[in-house]
Amino acid sequence: MGKIAISSRVVLKDAEDLSLAYTPGVAEPSLAISRNPDDVYLYTSKGNMVAVVTDGTAVLGLGDIGPLASIPVMEGKALLFKKFAGIDAFPIALSTKDPAEIVETVVRISPVFGGINLEDISAPRCFEIEEELKKRLDIPVFHDDQHGTAVVVVAALINALKLVGKSFKDISIAVSGAGAAGVAVTKFLLDFGVRDIRVCDRKGIIHRGREDLSPIKRMLAELTNPEGITGTLRDAMRGADVFIGLSVGGIVSRDMVEGMGRDPVVFAMANPVPEIMPDEARKAGARVVATGRSDYPNQVNNALGFPGIFRGALDVRASDINERMKRAAAFAIASLVDPVREDCIIPSPLDRRVVPAVAEAVAAAAIESGVARMPVDPSEVRAHAVAVLSKEWDELPEDHEIG
Amino acid sequence: MGKIAISSRVVLKDAEDLSLAYTPGVAEPSLAISRNPDDVYLYTSKGNMVAVVTDGTAVLGLGDIGPLASIPVMEGKALLFKKFAGIDAFPIALSTKDPAEIVETVVRISPVFGGINLEDISAPRCFEIEEELKKRLDIPVFHDDQHGTAVVVVAALINALKLVGKSFKDISIAVSGAGAAGVAVTKFLLDFGVRDIRVCDRKGIIHRGREDLSPIKRMLAELTNPEGITGTLRDAMRGADVFIGLSVGGIVSRDMVEGMGRDPVVFAMANPVPEIMPDEARKAGARVVATGRSDYPNQVNNALGFPGIFRGALDVRASDINERMKRAAAFAIASLVDPVREDCIIPSPLDRRVVPAVAEAVAAAAIESGVARMPVDPSEVRAHAVAVLSKEWDELPEDHEIG
Repeated sequence: MGKIAISSRVVLKDAEDLSLAYTPGVAEPSLAISRNPDDVYLYTSKGNMVAVVTDGTAVLGLGDIGPLASIPVMEGKALLFKKFAGIDAFPIALSTKDPAEIVETVVRISPVFGGINLEDISAPRCFEIEEELKKRLDIPVFHDDQHGTAVVVVAALINALKLVGKSFKDISIAVSGAGAAGVAVTKFLLDFGVRDIRVCDRKGIIHRGREDLSPIKRMLAELTNPEGITGTLRDAMRGADVFIGLSVGGIVSRDMVEGMGRDPVVFAMANPVPEIMPDEARKAGARVVATGRSDYPNQVNNALGFPGIFRGALDVRASDINERMKRAAAFAIASLVDPVREDCIIPSPLDRRVVPAVAEAVAAAAIESGVARMPVDPSEVRAHAVAVLSKEWDELPEDHEIG
Repeated sequence: MGKIAISSRVVLKDAEDLSLAYTPGVAEPSLAISRNPDDVYLYTSKGNMVAVVTDGTAVLGLGDIGPLASIPVMEGKALLFKKFAGIDAFPIALSTKDPAEIVETVVRISPVFGGINLEDISAPRCFEIEEELKKRLDIPVFHDDQHGTAVVVVAALINALKLVGKSFKDISIAVSGAGAAGVAVTKFLLDFGVRDIRVCDRKGIIHRGREDLSPIKRMLAELTNPEGITGTLRDAMRGADVFIGLSVGGIVSRDMVEGMGRDPVVFAMANPVPEIMPDEARKAGARVVATGRSDYPNQVNNALGFPGIFRGALDVRASDINERMKRAAAFAIASLVDPVREDCIIPSPLDRRVVPAVAEAVAAAAIESGVARMPVDPSEVRAHAVAVLSKEWDELPEDHEIG
């Protein structure tokens, strides 16, 4: 038994209903769309339908387990789209790993979808697949492992920096992991004005002198590490203000945190085992600690991002999810936490204010940046997000709602 | 607003539900499937999920209106799958018309589907697409415009022949239309032992001497028209026992019916205008008349076929929908009409007995023909079909239930 089903929005109780829902009644909307293609948003589910596309090559921490084994994860994702944002999402698990074939396939099946969420596709293939799809399609294409993670990490960091009294442009950051998430978080941090980022992959710090870099890592070498630091993650963390772990569990020791700058911020987001356990990080002097886990404070959870981002993008019929929309999403998430505390820099994914706030901010940013093809009032987008939010956790006790 | 939505089978009311439905809880079923691929039927929606695939080239009577304009029809089909048989069907409208690309695309997206329903793809491309997909996939592939139509037409003909006291092997049949439906109906009739079929396309009767035939029509020329009759539809119908129209409205006149043999059977199924209107056919002496319309008796409606056929195939995890399963479906539909009358040779699509009977018969035939990978008792399949049938037309007055 899977987690999703197709349901009907139409009642079918007699022969007349039958002839309206199918032939011959269905001819009328089909003709309307053939005359005016935009009517597809009026007469079909396209405007609220997102494909959750994977090839099963980087599923959770399990790696390349293939399309069949990825389906439970894609169905789970579809479930979150529905519960958090009323979005109809359908899992597409592809039996090819070839980037060009993946692009072709998604383009060919795109007519029924209003947006494409790429999921669990391994780096560096994910970068070229996303880039090419963005060129080919006029609907939003969003690789959540990259951009969803970046939005939520930066939202948490906005609040963490308030606590330690530092600003993006003055800090140095050590990033562990140069996969989809590490690359996207780094690029997003650059966009926020961070000047000193040291990214580490399995072989150590990425710098211009390395000969073993993929194109995307060569780009990182150009854009980061201005001091040209070489060495291991330990060297990258020395004196850094912020550690961002998007890699593997247990690779950061207490003394590595002790070697960081004043009031260290430690985001150890490897799942299920963080790069360093929160208790250890605190004992080593970390002032603010976040993880990917729900059993510690400050859970950096993608569910804070993609539901509202897509809700906002779909509701104004955005042709893209651009940098400005992502920035708006990060600020919207961060602003919901008041007061900011060391054990509360980010809302709970079950906080009912999150998706409406993100959707409204993203819709406004889409309109301002000129990608909205149907610029409805962002306050209407917020109201829509409130209306479609699942009622299931309405009855949660107060303390589940952080912020 | 479209006709379908994605719904959830899972409750999500707190952080624990969230971690079970998505990460990290979802890792367990994914790992199970990666160890044993068949577990995909246990842990995902695959076993009940059908793709309704089109390229928008032969939509209803509208022709090549493209993938966007085809979506209302595909959603309508998905709706019928759900209401009639509890099957989750998802529309896939492809932005390519190239047969090889269509095949590749369907193969690549097939992991999440338990079956493929091809729909409204123009002939002769539909034949090669279906044939190739059947070779490439281990799930049922079924072009409903071909085989669904064939099953329901033959079901109606089984009962019509009882009324006129003739048998399949002794009759001559004139078929108008050599598209997807005409070809499939002809092949299915051959399988039922009919020896004299005269198929007409736009240029007249198909015979071995014609130089303008596509490969599939060349095959028809070999298998049909043993007397080598040449000429027009009028010549084909002269002396025939049965007329089967799967072509265009208004092309049969009263005198053409008057020229048929004793007790003519006239199935004029062009939509929305039949080849000859039922009143005209009757005035010309037709003993039994059927159409595709709901406002006349004897509606030959595909909804009598595909829901039960797929229900039966999915429930025994059939790798194919073969000739034996289609025959079983035709007999199951025909047997529900008792007594057979001239104005009642086929059940109503809203007759609640149809889908359970078809599903049971198809499941049994799948098991007997060795294509069932999970041979559950056909009576359980029937019970399942009864349980999932939409309750919406439970309250219909008696006379809506024909038979």
